[in-house]
Amino acid sequence: MGRPPLDRKTRRAAAQNMIHSAEQLIEEDGIGHVTIRKIANRADVNSAALYHYFTDVDELLMFACMDIMRLISENVDEVKAQTEDTDPMTRYTRVWEVLCSDGFRNPELTSHVLFGKHSEDIERIVRKYLTIFPAPEHEDDEEPDPERMKSLINHFDFRSDVRQETAGAMNRDVDDPHVEIVTELMMGYYRMLLGELAQDRGNSLSAEEQTEKMLKAAKYLMQKPIS
Amino acid sequence: MGRPPLDRKTRRAAAQNMIHSAEQLIEEDGIGHVTIRKIANRADVNSAALYHYFTDVDELLMFACMDIMRLISENVDEVKAQTEDTDPMTRYTRVWEVLCSDGFRNPELTSHVLFGKHSEDIERIVRKYLTIFPAPEHEDDEEPDPERMKSLINHFDFRSDVRQETAGAMNRDVDDPHVEIVTELMMGYYRMLLGELAQDRGNSLSAEEQTEKMLKAAKYLMQKPIS
Repeated sequence: MGRPPLDRKTRRAAAQNMIHSAEQLIEEDGIGHVTIRKIANRADVNSAALYHYFTDVDELLMFACMDIMRLISENVDEVKAQTEDTDPMTRYTRVWEVLCSDGFRNPELTSHVLFGKHSEDIERIVRKYLTIFPAPEHEDDEEPDPERMKSLINHFDFRSDVRQETAGAMNRDVDDPHVEIVTELMMGYYRMLLGELAQDRGNSLSAEEQTEKMLKAAKYLMQKPIS
Repeated sequence: MGRPPLDRKTRRAAAQNMIHSAEQLIEEDGIGHVTIRKIANRADVNSAALYHYFTDVDELLMFACMDIMRLISENVDEVKAQTEDTDPMTRYTRVWEVLCSDGFRNPELTSHVLFGKHSEDIERIVRKYLTIFPAPEHEDDEEPDPERMKSLINHFDFRSDVRQETAGAMNRDVDDPHVEIVTELMMGYYRMLLGELAQDRGNSLSAEEQTEKMLKAAKYLMQKPIS
């Protein structure tokens, strides 16, 4: 087992290689079947070497999911831009539609990123990601570019998007306790449906049926006047 | 690796031994750290031998969780008996209180049983469990006792309990679509909070705080009149 190379560029290339290997394996086998051993084999390094760079396989997988999360995030932003002048309830529904459509296509991966071990630790994850993949003009900086930090954090922060749209649709402040409850209930339901799809059990519903359930719940929560 | 013994009694004793070993390991290490290899070591058998008896580690763990599920189920039944004459909203809240109090104490285990790979397959699980642990008077029967089947299935079927109490509290039929939506939303939220507790992340809330969130959501959903 080799010691980690001390040179920053070499270390960076090694970490990038491991992340790319993980990306390939996620694409081929699904995130649920990716192990440290498989990544090490693909990257042609010793399993122990991976722990010089990443705290655990879950952290490494967060980095490998970055591109897919960016895509989902861009789709959400697009819907928000398209519906800027529509009524808040339509906006709200459209945001959930895109979260379902993109999330339910990759249920395990979305679960891992949004509800996994490192999901509450996004700032640290993004900071580390940017030291591994810096913008060319920031290659020699100690600290990652704050603008890129902000933009990448936004890729993971669907809960904020949902909360904001919930506030709009309920015509209440984003900090209103009712907005919080509704956001949490919908996020919990989303997580449950992602979990059911990820387990792919014989009697589980299709992604389209799950989306319909999700939108029905959204409509139900929005329709009801608050006492 | 030995072939499975053909005699029913010997096979049964071997399966029981593996389940008891799994129970001990759950108690000692938590369900998330129990592996086939550890169970095999504890039961003093070859890892491969376990697959003669169980389809996978998740199935074996379902059997090992039976006692704890029975306990939770009995607590729910007790609350239902105690609140038979109280108003349906109090009953509903009390049922969630006991599900939180018992579930949040064993979040990983409860998640595994209620939202795991085999959770939609309870009838098969219970049938198999009863062939491994038959009542003494049914030791030689081919089929498990239907009464015990029913009673054990009930130990896992919290969703039905919740749905029934939801219907009561909403003063609607148990098959009403609104009852379904509210039940699903609450189950999803329960699952999310169990997951957060199971991951035991630094910034996660205590079981008491999670219970409070759950009851707030219950109150919110029940309070609002339906349009």
